[in-house]
Amino acid sequence: MSSTNRQWKLTAYPTGMPQATNWDLVECPIPKPGANELLVQALYWDVAPYMRGRISPKKNYATGVSIGDVMVSGAIGKVIHSNSPAFQTDEIVVTDMGFGWQDFAVLSPANIRRVDPTIAPLPCWLDFMGINGLTAYFGLVEAAVIKPGDTVVVSAATGSVGQLVGQIAKIAGCRTIAITSSEDKINWCRELGYDEGLNYRTEPDLAAALGRVCPDGIDVFFDNTSGPIHDAVLQNLAAHARITLCGTVSLADRFDEPDIGPRFLRQILVARARIQGFLVLDYQLRYPEAWQRLTHWYNAGLINQKYDIDEGGLTNLPSAFLRLLNGQKFGKQLVKALPLN
Amino acid sequence: MSSTNRQWKLTAYPTGMPQATNWDLVECPIPKPGANELLVQALYWDVAPYMRGRISPKKNYATGVSIGDVMVSGAIGKVIHSNSPAFQTDEIVVTDMGFGWQDFAVLSPANIRRVDPTIAPLPCWLDFMGINGLTAYFGLVEAAVIKPGDTVVVSAATGSVGQLVGQIAKIAGCRTIAITSSEDKINWCRELGYDEGLNYRTEPDLAAALGRVCPDGIDVFFDNTSGPIHDAVLQNLAAHARITLCGTVSLADRFDEPDIGPRFLRQILVARARIQGFLVLDYQLRYPEAWQRLTHWYNAGLINQKYDIDEGGLTNLPSAFLRLLNGQKFGKQLVKALPLN
Repeated sequence: MSSTNRQWKLTAYPTGMPQATNWDLVECPIPKPGANELLVQALYWDVAPYMRGRISPKKNYATGVSIGDVMVSGAIGKVIHSNSPAFQTDEIVVTDMGFGWQDFAVLSPANIRRVDPTIAPLPCWLDFMGINGLTAYFGLVEAAVIKPGDTVVVSAATGSVGQLVGQIAKIAGCRTIAITSSEDKINWCRELGYDEGLNYRTEPDLAAALGRVCPDGIDVFFDNTSGPIHDAVLQNLAAHARITLCGTVSLADRFDEPDIGPRFLRQILVARARIQGFLVLDYQLRYPEAWQRLTHWYNAGLINQKYDIDEGGLTNLPSAFLRLLNGQKFGKQLVKALPLN
Repeated sequence: MSSTNRQWKLTAYPTGMPQATNWDLVECPIPKPGANELLVQALYWDVAPYMRGRISPKKNYATGVSIGDVMVSGAIGKVIHSNSPAFQTDEIVVTDMGFGWQDFAVLSPANIRRVDPTIAPLPCWLDFMGINGLTAYFGLVEAAVIKPGDTVVVSAATGSVGQLVGQIAKIAGCRTIAITSSEDKINWCRELGYDEGLNYRTEPDLAAALGRVCPDGIDVFFDNTSGPIHDAVLQNLAAHARITLCGTVSLADRFDEPDIGPRFLRQILVARARIQGFLVLDYQLRYPEAWQRLTHWYNAGLINQKYDIDEGGLTNLPSAFLRLLNGQKFGKQLVKALPLN
């Protein structure tokens, strides 16, 4: 086992779109777990849009990463040493956000869950068996209150959350429309069961295209992007539409300035629509309900996720994150650890 | 009794802010009620912001006034002739929206309610005993789900709905902040029991002022205006804030162009806030619940409304409406009918 721990530390808050120079790779000794703690070695790191909000001095729903701190991240890892009776050496565990971009982390049993590879392969535990599955489930079921027959539009429809939203909405008996950024992604959306797919990069008038595929209006919008896609949907709301505002990845380069554009308050009033800012952490007490459903659906063959796994190890984390923010990845993005000496 | 009926008919959809020339005053014979119908003579007409949305070709929650049709309006009136066993000649009745800007209307019993002047004076029946009371009640109780201790901000706080919102929120145990347009109106807000009042016309930085008077953030925003006041509030949301989007009077001159400005989707997400487009008509089956409460509170001396009554009769309706849209009236605005020859 390696005797050093490598860590990506934040050097500066990005201005606009983050750059690789916002982090420095440093080495330090492997930390020692205290009483009832575990030392865990990363196998996969999560790379997700929420991380953009954590490297900004702006107010967020959770404390941000301070300058000089290790970048925030969830990870799947192997227990190297356990001072907790609840976990044994060599067990595989997952933490949703508490690992960081580093080889090793000291974790508390309260913040980790056991991974069972006989239920689903490892990457799934940072995806539909993790924060993405919980987000799609509670964002649809609780925030948007989906009903059979609803027309559901999903932005970033092949993203980690979007893929699941489309599949869960179909399970619930909804009609589903994907908005994504390439023909390949639209083809993947068809395989996932989406009823329609629109490429916002080539569609000359996205609002008009949505009007054509949703002639009776949009009942539910699961918004992972904000920005111009949001604007196009807001022009096509059905009465009593519900919008789950889950992500704002289109604003990744605009954290420090107001987002100026058309507002749709009149349309929201006329439709008696609802916009609900959504954060999965608000539903923590009910996570087991979602895990039970998602496991059941996966076993029934109803969950089919695409992964975009960078196999280059820890050193590739910043570039993988920038690919995500630039809309270049395809599927749930992870970085796989290389074997350590 | 007069033998002619005067009517204000829409001549053109306004471009931007409505003008007096958007209506023509015409004369026609008094209509005859059919089976089970009543002929009613107006005593007071309602003048309200929702009427702006009805004279636009844009999609609205209800059918708009067509060119050549009588302008929409509620009214209190006296039954002149009744073909319905449910109402007698000389009884006073109210209709929320079904009368129009005219001296006489033929009404159906289903669309009117009996006015009891021993419960409250006539103008009250187009106010807290009518659509304004219902709007304030359901907009707070159902759309915003107010709780004791909430900090509640109200725009157009001395308007027909705003006055009531402040008083009902106080009854419910909330802290209330009025946003209005003059020192006189702020003084009136104090009499109504508002805890704080801000004049958006003289406040150099409304967002900062709201931050000072709401240091723990705004839990509930009852928005009657949209526009820059909305923008200032959105920068001060508490976690899990709820916004009842009830009116967009600040957009009265911008029905035909997009409302461009800062959007606050990131703030909504971070606060997990909710914006709920609100229309009182969605709560029709529950109106009696609100009437019961409002009557009780009025009898207990807890409802104290200011009225701005134009006593110039039917010919003054367009100018009264334009005063409302320009923010020049003070209190619930009505036009009182002159005696007819």
